[in-house]
Amino acid sequence: MNAELSMGIVGAGRIGRIHAENLAFHTPGVRLRSIHDPNRAAAEECAARCRIARVDDDPRRLIEDPELDAVVICSPTGFHADQIELAAAARKAIFCEKPIDLELARVDRALACVERAGVPLQLGFNRRFDPGFRRARALVAEGRIGTPQLVRITSRDPEPPPAQYVRGSGGMFLDMTIHDFDMARWIIASEVSELHAFASVLVDPAIGEAGDIDTAVISLRYASGALRSIDNSRKAVYGYDQRLEVFGSEGCVVVGNVPPTTAVLSGRSGVVADLPLHFFLERYQAAYLAEMLDFVECLRAGRAPSVSGKDGRVPVLMAMAAERSRREGRPVSVVG
Amino acid sequence: MNAELSMGIVGAGRIGRIHAENLAFHTPGVRLRSIHDPNRAAAEECAARCRIARVDDDPRRLIEDPELDAVVICSPTGFHADQIELAAAARKAIFCEKPIDLELARVDRALACVERAGVPLQLGFNRRFDPGFRRARALVAEGRIGTPQLVRITSRDPEPPPAQYVRGSGGMFLDMTIHDFDMARWIIASEVSELHAFASVLVDPAIGEAGDIDTAVISLRYASGALRSIDNSRKAVYGYDQRLEVFGSEGCVVVGNVPPTTAVLSGRSGVVADLPLHFFLERYQAAYLAEMLDFVECLRAGRAPSVSGKDGRVPVLMAMAAERSRREGRPVSVVG
Amino acid sequence: MNAELSMGIVGAGRIGRIHAENLAFHTPGVRLRSIHDPNRAAAEECAARCRIARVDDDPRRLIEDPELDAVVICSPTGFHADQIELAAAARKAIFCEKPIDLELARVDRALACVERAGVPLQLGFNRRFDPGFRRARALVAEGRIGTPQLVRITSRDPEPPPAQYVRGSGGMFLDMTIHDFDMARWIIASEVSELHAFASVLVDPAIGEAGDIDTAVISLRYASGALRSIDNSRKAVYGYDQRLEVFGSEGCVVVGNVPPTTAVLSGRSGVVADLPLHFFLERYQAAYLAEMLDFVECLRAGRAPSVSGKDGRVPVLMAMAAERSRREGRPVSVVG
Amino acid sequence: MNAELSMGIVGAGRIGRIHAENLAFHTPGVRLRSIHDPNRAAAEECAARCRIARVDDDPRRLIEDPELDAVVICSPTGFHADQIELAAAARKAIFCEKPIDLELARVDRALACVERAGVPLQLGFNRRFDPGFRRARALVAEGRIGTPQLVRITSRDPEPPPAQYVRGSGGMFLDMTIHDFDMARWIIASEVSELHAFASVLVDPAIGEAGDIDTAVISLRYASGALRSIDNSRKAVYGYDQRLEVFGSEGCVVVGNVPPTTAVLSGRSGVVADLPLHFFLERYQAAYLAEMLDFVECLRAGRAPSVSGKDGRVPVLMAMAAERSRREGRPVSVVG
Repeated sequence: MNAELSMGIVGAGRIGRIHAENLAFHTPGVRLRSIHDPNRAAAEECAARCRIARVDDDPRRLIEDPELDAVVICSPTGFHADQIELAAAARKAIFCEKPIDLELARVDRALACVERAGVPLQLGFNRRFDPGFRRARALVAEGRIGTPQLVRITSRDPEPPPAQYVRGSGGMFLDMTIHDFDMARWIIASEVSELHAFASVLVDPAIGEAGDIDTAVISLRYASGALRSIDNSRKAVYGYDQRLEVFGSEGCVVVGNVPPTTAVLSGRSGVVADLPLHFFLERYQAAYLAEMLDFVECLRAGRAPSVSGKDGRVPVLMAMAAERSRREGRPVSVVG
Repeated sequence: MNAELSMGIVGAGRIGRIHAENLAFHTPGVRLRSIHDPNRAAAEECAARCRIARVDDDPRRLIEDPELDAVVICSPTGFHADQIELAAAARKAIFCEKPIDLELARVDRALACVERAGVPLQLGFNRRFDPGFRRARALVAEGRIGTPQLVRITSRDPEPPPAQYVRGSGGMFLDMTIHDFDMARWIIASEVSELHAFASVLVDPAIGEAGDIDTAVISLRYASGALRSIDNSRKAVYGYDQRLEVFGSEGCVVVGNVPPTTAVLSGRSGVVADLPLHFFLERYQAAYLAEMLDFVECLRAGRAPSVSGKDGRVPVLMAMAAERSRREGRPVSVVG
Repeated sequence: MNAELSMGIVGAGRIGRIHAENLAFHTPGVRLRSIHDPNRAAAEECAARCRIARVDDDPRRLIEDPELDAVVICSPTGFHADQIELAAAARKAIFCEKPIDLELARVDRALACVERAGVPLQLGFNRRFDPGFRRARALVAEGRIGTPQLVRITSRDPEPPPAQYVRGSGGMFLDMTIHDFDMARWIIASEVSELHAFASVLVDPAIGEAGDIDTAVISLRYASGALRSIDNSRKAVYGYDQRLEVFGSEGCVVVGNVPPTTAVLSGRSGVVADLPLHFFLERYQAAYLAEMLDFVECLRAGRAPSVSGKDGRVPVLMAMAAERSRREGRPVSVVG
Repeated sequence: MNAELSMGIVGAGRIGRIHAENLAFHTPGVRLRSIHDPNRAAAEECAARCRIARVDDDPRRLIEDPELDAVVICSPTGFHADQIELAAAARKAIFCEKPIDLELARVDRALACVERAGVPLQLGFNRRFDPGFRRARALVAEGRIGTPQLVRITSRDPEPPPAQYVRGSGGMFLDMTIHDFDMARWIIASEVSELHAFASVLVDPAIGEAGDIDTAVISLRYASGALRSIDNSRKAVYGYDQRLEVFGSEGCVVVGNVPPTTAVLSGRSGVVADLPLHFFLERYQAAYLAEMLDFVECLRAGRAPSVSGKDGRVPVLMAMAAERSRREGRPVSVVG
């Protein structure tokens, strides 16, 4: 590995650009060498902004570039598994956005490649790096709430996706709740054994016509007997609603939404505070940077990435269990 | 009915004394005539404090007293149904603490008596009269959150009951969650069609040995497709935790805990606010008064009580469904 | 002194009625014997509601009644000093609303009578009994904020008084800020040595025409070097604004406004909480009861009242200093 | 002016490095050409991190570089006026940290040079660009609080400066309160006519021995009759305390401190939230970037900078008036 890490990015969409900026301007010891996007103009614009030397038309060439130490995969989900395998074969360290794939068998094949190659792989569960959620997890880990007994996650998007997107998304559980499934495992460092999902179409009938749901309440039981509930909606008119609560034998930690300012206006009709941040890139701006810094630090220190391949696989299992539960009307075991 | 309502109280325990004080000192147009408690000293102490003329040793004589307009039943649950029937037969207006009985058949017989007698019966679901929850319900009723889609109730006691109490309580769902089941129906004025319960013993093994549970996550589906989750614990070390959230197509209303003061101390190690009120009589002090004022006002105005016999019956059904769900490991329909 | 304290009330206005209810219903060991008001109908209505045996047409007869142990003076300010002197001469314990008088010399004569008679006198600085402010003072007294260095008081009324009232009120500093002057001394148990007042007429020109002001910022220096600021307005459209902050070498305690409920509505345009309580009788309901309980307890225990005659005198001095400061445009010493 | 603005920085201390990073990585259309610091190593380190082409040993050569469009002056205060004059003579746009100088006459000479040269000059009052304070100002400007009547600023540092620093600082009013004086004018777009200061040494006797004070309460009167209070301390153990309140005829806007996360822990002894951000560079990180973006945008658009030379001068006047007030024990006029 070079003194400076040489990195390439596959995908110059919203999330690719975020990672590009964080790597270009805020991650010391990294040289962003190359970027690819099927939309070449997008790749070029990002390259200019972030001073990236090369724009590659072929993602394979980018990945196999011998000068590269690590690759950041921000392509659409359907390409993740293939590109992970290419990168593993080329002995690159890999950062990949979630999910690895919508099919468990495909996830497993990709992870097997990574394991054989012995390369580091970090999954993009950005919420683990949010300062508020990290604080909550640290308090839990330090025993400040005693033994965890109840976990509650509220996760509501500000706007529903177009029905067209829904069709290729694998369903709300795989597309959106997957973050909450990851949070469930990570926040108390414990595995879920069983879950039950109630789900409805209340936001947009077109989502129902596409075979998906847009509102859900999911209950989970941990192996320890601790219990958890998630509630999801595809549309919260007041903005991106991302809250977490962990309750235990000695206390409770609650993480609320993040408003843009603390200004509060008292007038004749009420005391009015700011809405929470609306857009996920703003809400998780600090988290995206922290996860990239962590990835680079793991590579430099030679330690295993803090979000592993298994961490990418289990939430897919959980999403599938949730889908089965809501379709079959019964609780479903999650077997890892 | 007299110019002044003449009322009697059966039971001088914690809740009986609360009602006695509210009726004696804060409810204009009421004369508290009599009180009964098997513990005569308790009845006498309450009578002295609240200037109640008679202490009756026999609850039946109290109830059948021709001078009495209304009776407030605060005896242990096992006596509720019998005393409701006595009061109905004697043509008294009835206020009764929840639940009517632990057996649905017994509930139904008592309600049939009330119906035949044509007397008013109000059930003691005090939380409906809490100023915060009333505000939430008013906002929902005014359409301020649009169509309700998700409801979330957090209900955690500050201290678990002794295992001995647990044995006669009918179980946590009938004893404690019953309030949350009532809240579920009332807050969005809609019936629950199906529910699923996960439950554990995490607080006190003696509760488990008594055949009960102390921690639960319950999911509910409304006929409208709206969804709801409840989480319960028998022990929150930080106090009585009573929160509510209703989310809809146009917004979300959240009701938090009530601290005794707004004092906040910033020191070297954090910004520290008051714990929520610990004791249910303090937390719901305003609610207990409001429910009694409402009962008396309904009697005076000749309108039906705002918490009906049916409102006492359905939460019992829901508690039974929850018990079946957790025992059989499957969602259960709630058929009214 | 009788087993039961026998008490009379002079004045059946807003504040007299509050004390009557608290003494009648919430203060064990007290018998409310008599009430007087020049408006006899008001006195009778209060007597009926609070079960007071006698309505006296002559305040002097009420005060000199040999059966009476204590008298509560809630008449207009102009009568306070005379009635204090009558009560002292008749050897009654005295509770008197603030201020004792608008003239310092008159205050001093009344206090001299009280001293000669050796009767207990408690002044009605109700805010000292507010749960939030008490919490703040306890934290200060326990050293939780170290040495006090800065005190800040925000005190804004919801509605300005009519200009007619202003004329007889002694001015805003004596009528309204006097509570804040008392708070300044009490909260850190320290005397003010010097103060400076800027004042304006911004709310109602009629107040200015009556020779008074309606908006002020007052700075105070304590003997210890600690500093303090008060801001006052006669009109806050969002309600009664009563906040306090004490900052010291080890921390800071802030007491905020008290909302009627904790309900918060998130919609498209903001996160809206309840306005603070609007009316002073609601805001300080708990404080009025606590001060009366404290007065009675002091009498029973034979200890000196917790708000002394001196506590009634010094804020008058401070109000006069503030008035001189704003008129002469310079800081003024407060000599006790 | 070039397509890309070419800029140089004088001073690679804490604030110089912040501006360097913001210009290098977050300000599109800018090329950072050169940096100077008497500590060459500091300049080189910053140049390497921010990819600045030149390190100049002589600030004059940097400023006079014909390739340069604008210069950012972050040197110690004693150099500001000279460097402003050099830059004006060389026809550079100027961004200068506050204050321009500790002597009013020197401030005026420097501003006269700028005026003669006709170059843009922006002063570094970063708090004007804080998102919370901007929100407050926008609400005031939109009339949401009606006519402003009271302004309150709390400004407390987390740590006192060393006594040695104090000696050369011009005193707390010029060094620290100057930001609050600027805020006073800007937040309601109105000039202060008179002020009064009480001040003490309560934090560190060494500060007193150096002839300065560390704790103050300052009252101000605006030409409109509106009033304002500032409280300052050099040491708040709980962190950097920066709050603002503007009260008017139609409402009140309050801006609170900014915590690093929204995590709140409820345990046996209280409900504990995060301390406010401790370090000014973290607290005002967004503000520093916004002010630099604004400076560059003003240059590109050819409009006058949003913080003018006069905006740099008046707070110096106000600080001097405060110093005179506290020394002479009387209110002092502020004549612009």
